[in-house]
Amino acid sequence: MKRSIGILGGMGPLATADLFRKIVLLTDASRDSDHIRIYIDDNASIPDRTAAILAGGPDPLPAMTDSLRKLEACGADCIIMPCNTAHYFLPQLQALTKLPFLSMLEATARACQARFPGETAAILATKGTLAADLYQQTLLGAEVPFLVPGPEEQDALMRVIYEGVKAGAPPEMYRSDMTAVMERLTAQGAGYFILGCTELPVAYQALGLTAPAVDPTAELAKAAIRFCGYAAKE
Amino acid sequence: MKRSIGILGGMGPLATADLFRKIVLLTDASRDSDHIRIYIDDNASIPDRTAAILAGGPDPLPAMTDSLRKLEACGADCIIMPCNTAHYFLPQLQALTKLPFLSMLEATARACQARFPGETAAILATKGTLAADLYQQTLLGAEVPFLVPGPEEQDALMRVIYEGVKAGAPPEMYRSDMTAVMERLTAQGAGYFILGCTELPVAYQALGLTAPAVDPTAELAKAAIRFCGYAAKE
Repeated sequence: MKRSIGILGGMGPLATADLFRKIVLLTDASRDSDHIRIYIDDNASIPDRTAAILAGGPDPLPAMTDSLRKLEACGADCIIMPCNTAHYFLPQLQALTKLPFLSMLEATARACQARFPGETAAILATKGTLAADLYQQTLLGAEVPFLVPGPEEQDALMRVIYEGVKAGAPPEMYRSDMTAVMERLTAQGAGYFILGCTELPVAYQALGLTAPAVDPTAELAKAAIRFCGYAAKE
Repeated sequence: MKRSIGILGGMGPLATADLFRKIVLLTDASRDSDHIRIYIDDNASIPDRTAAILAGGPDPLPAMTDSLRKLEACGADCIIMPCNTAHYFLPQLQALTKLPFLSMLEATARACQARFPGETAAILATKGTLAADLYQQTLLGAEVPFLVPGPEEQDALMRVIYEGVKAGAPPEMYRSDMTAVMERLTAQGAGYFILGCTELPVAYQALGLTAPAVDPTAELAKAAIRFCGYAAKE
């Protein structure tokens, strides 16, 4: 029995397009009809998750619930969302639906265990994701050692994400911020990077970076492909 | 009043991801909330359009209608589909919905007029699109001169589309077929190419080709962006 995927998207739109493309490319298929049926609600007007967590900004949950209902009505068999910070709301969303809601954080932790056993991960993420301890808790549970960026590095990552990728800026505008953060964390002992905001794999690819990294978007894509009963490429 | 887009997708899945990405990149936006809401039903199991037109294959209209109903129920304000050959069924689909259904063929013809006035287009497309005279009729109506590939070139294009892009083959597997077709049509007087199958802009980019071309996927993206009341980048 083959299942379909619902993507609660728009957080942000380029990250949603990136997840969709990765699902298509990572599905082991040789013709159109070998591919998974995917429903997407790309709603970029969902209020900012970091602003809601850190600064009492508008609650994104009502808009996320609206998308969830639309994906259920389409007939999706599972739900995924290409926003790490939005996983702060995952327990509430899971309580709102009978559909399996796959966690990007858990898919990432499994990839860390498998690909970099014993090595120290550096968590690259928004201030919202870091302040909510989302990756820290998941990695502790999976016994994956990790480092967290300091305040200056967090500022630099927010610039890469908001003034760079989300703003549609040219990659060279955010290269120095991105590489400075990575160099600092490497000097502190990081063996690889978790690209823990869905704008960061987009930045990483646009900049042509090659340092060892786990891409949570790709790991979520593979987890969803397998959940749906299809084979995923590595 | 800003409107939303419904994408009747899956024909094929990588072309659908390409259209989605182009809408995001071509929207004049500097933050997430400047972006259009987009609903996608990516149903790669819609029966092959060329097989239906040429060989009496299964009728794709029932599956397309199912997607149309889902996009209507989500609340889409217009419908687009990233498959040139599927436009054979456009009059029937338009009769089935009250929503505006934007034509990729017409968006392409307008781009040909604006960008290459008086020059001769070479129509690169599936055998289904060519046999159904889809581009020929639209270009005649727009007074755009054109050339059509001969039987051997049509065979080569079908290999690029089906054994190349849809099969997920590496670009080098289809480079010689693609460039041979383009050289032959240039020798016959073509001044530019219409990449008139949604797998062809994917192939064109993967191969790093730079010959003058109109990308119907990008033209449809821009038409949809403007229809929704947003500004499109050129």
